[in-house]
Amino acid sequence: MILVHTPNPKEVSAYLELFRAAMPERQFVDLEHAQLSDIRHLVTWGLPDGLLADMPRLEALFALGAGVDKLMTRPDLPADLPVYRLLDGGMAAQMTEYIRYGVLGYQRNMDLYRRQQATGQWRKLAPRLPGDIRVGILGLGEIGSAVAQSLARDGYQLSGWSRSPKNIETVRCLHGEAGLAQLLAESQVLACVLPSTPDTRGLLNRQRLEALPQGAMLINAGRGDLLDQDALLALLDNGHLRCAQLDVFAEEPLPADHPLWRHPAVAITPHVAAITLRQPAVEQIVAGLRQLAAGLPAAGLVQRAQGY
Amino acid sequence: MILVHTPNPKEVSAYLELFRAAMPERQFVDLEHAQLSDIRHLVTWGLPDGLLADMPRLEALFALGAGVDKLMTRPDLPADLPVYRLLDGGMAAQMTEYIRYGVLGYQRNMDLYRRQQATGQWRKLAPRLPGDIRVGILGLGEIGSAVAQSLARDGYQLSGWSRSPKNIETVRCLHGEAGLAQLLAESQVLACVLPSTPDTRGLLNRQRLEALPQGAMLINAGRGDLLDQDALLALLDNGHLRCAQLDVFAEEPLPADHPLWRHPAVAITPHVAAITLRQPAVEQIVAGLRQLAAGLPAAGLVQRAQGY
Ligand SMILES: NC(=O)c1ccc[n+]([C@@H]2O[C@H](COP(=O)([O-])OP(=O)(O)OC[C@H]3O[C@@H](n4cnc5c(N)ncnc54)[C@H](OP(=O)(O)O)[C@@H]3O)[C@@H](O)[C@H]2O)c1
Ligand SMILES: NC(=O)c1ccc[n+]([C@@H]2O[C@H](COP(=O)([O-])OP(=O)(O)OC[C@H]3O[C@@H](n4cnc5c(N)ncnc54)[C@H](OP(=O)(O)O)[C@@H]3O)[C@@H](O)[C@H]2O)c1
Repeated sequence: MILVHTPNPKEVSAYLELFRAAMPERQFVDLEHAQLSDIRHLVTWGLPDGLLADMPRLEALFALGAGVDKLMTRPDLPADLPVYRLLDGGMAAQMTEYIRYGVLGYQRNMDLYRRQQATGQWRKLAPRLPGDIRVGILGLGEIGSAVAQSLARDGYQLSGWSRSPKNIETVRCLHGEAGLAQLLAESQVLACVLPSTPDTRGLLNRQRLEALPQGAMLINAGRGDLLDQDALLALLDNGHLRCAQLDVFAEEPLPADHPLWRHPAVAITPHVAAITLRQPAVEQIVAGLRQLAAGLPAAGLVQRAQGY
Repeated sequence: MILVHTPNPKEVSAYLELFRAAMPERQFVDLEHAQLSDIRHLVTWGLPDGLLADMPRLEALFALGAGVDKLMTRPDLPADLPVYRLLDGGMAAQMTEYIRYGVLGYQRNMDLYRRQQATGQWRKLAPRLPGDIRVGILGLGEIGSAVAQSLARDGYQLSGWSRSPKNIETVRCLHGEAGLAQLLAESQVLACVLPSTPDTRGLLNRQRLEALPQGAMLINAGRGDLLDQDALLALLDNGHLRCAQLDVFAEEPLPADHPLWRHPAVAITPHVAAITLRQPAVEQIVAGLRQLAAGLPAAGLVQRAQGY
């Protein structure tokens, strides 16, 4: 039995329909109809706390998303349970759009024109071409590498940072602490698509944000706990940073009284930069289930030691 | 003698330097050093009224821009003076960026998230893919055809409208009054890059804007007098249109007390969508001067009867 669960019952119904159509030979059930002790495979996002302890026969968990930080830090996650995450499935294209929107707005001064508009000010600003701007992407995985290559095709200069060394023709690939220092120093726009892991949480602290050039922009679409939000606000207020586009926050939903909401240099979106698209997600998970049934490895296995 | 004039003396110096380097055999002068009665060729943008009457030997005028409406409606423009305008020279790429920014923001609901942010509201909106959106481009000339093809490569559906019939593989090309009606009815985003001529002024009136689908977006980067600004405001207020991105206005600078400045669904830029880049402009005009000197036709000749 394969349990499919998300906090939204309508979404569960939609997923069940797709899974049953794609794999009629297997039994997909929702939480209400599940015999937890019989569950071998779990497809989920936002599973209630504690529930994993009631599934002693669970063999594999498929996350309905690219980021698994919430899952990997659950106390009820069995230490040796294989966890699979979604690879791209349309998310890289969405993330590219989200980051391109921020970069394009920065290059074309749309944020500054918006601020001029607030005071009825008609003033032309010095324009820049894409080639005048270097964008630094933190994270060169499934999503970050696609974003970086796409922005390079738009004409921007690209730097990227990852844990292991990479080689991408159109991107200056950096790694390690020295690589991060170089990327920060040279990037007018810093766009973060890192996973949240014990190694990355708190990475974007005051000191690292100060290492960006004067007037830089920050885009965070990785996870909220990567960023020191107070440091960001301080550096926007003292003018070191020009603007920010944020999709993820230390606390979500971002509390209604949080100062980020009201900051004129901050654009806020409610964790929508790249959403899971059902059809490709189902196709990927079905392929994974078939692999496992054949005793073969499935794609997207999370490395426990690294947390992503 | 070739007179180079714009309202900005620093800009004139920069142009003179480039022209003299590119064509040392010819004499380029500014207004201060010009013998007006000797001027054979004029390179200009924003020439003071009346001045053309003092240049009896003028053989050709090169406009330092793509739009020549202000020039063509001057009372002192000799009826048979050939006027040449700039063709692209980097403007199409800039215009593509400007319109892409608007389209991308519309597709990804960035305008709506900005409005939610104003009230601290965290609410995910139904996402759309590029292929879900049809963009209608008014004007398929040097600039519009490049914009349309580039947005088609981004994955949007494209319609375009011009005076004469066109054939562009990735764009549904329409013309005439019936073609305009079809384009308006099917375009979620309407982007205007038409020239201002006797035929196009006032084109975007209330009736035509009402023909757009409910919730559509308007981008105007052609000329301000193409659009009925009051009709736009009324249709934004009654909810028929969702938002607008405007670069050009009936009166420029847009008067400080104009309601467009303060409308929450309107983004205003101060006529900067696609600026003249000096180096390509100089190259184009020098090429034109060489053609004329050889008795050959030069590119960019404005058709007087059509006004563009
Ligand atoms: N806001 C949204 O809507 C949204 C949507 C989807 C995903 N996301 C976020 O985006 C993240 C990335 O997704 P993905 O599919 O691209 O993940 P991925 O394929 O696992 O890529 C992660 C990248 O981060 C790098 N990385 C991890 N730890 C690092 C460290 N300590 N130092 C330097 N680099 C490190 C990895 O380096 P190596 O290549 O060397 O392993 C890799 O390049 C997700 O984890 C999630 O948090 C957000
Ligand atoms: N905001 C800015 O920063 C900025 C910068 C540059 C240009 N512009 C504006 O953009 C305009 C277009 O520039 P361009 O270089 O692309 O000009 P263009 O090459 O002359 O193209 C003009 C297009 O408009 C079409 N058109 C003209 N009159 C029409 C009518 N009555 N009905 C239908 N279509 C008509 C033409 O149709 P045909 O192809 O059939 O002739 C052509 O496709 C300029 O005139 C200027 O106003 C604005």
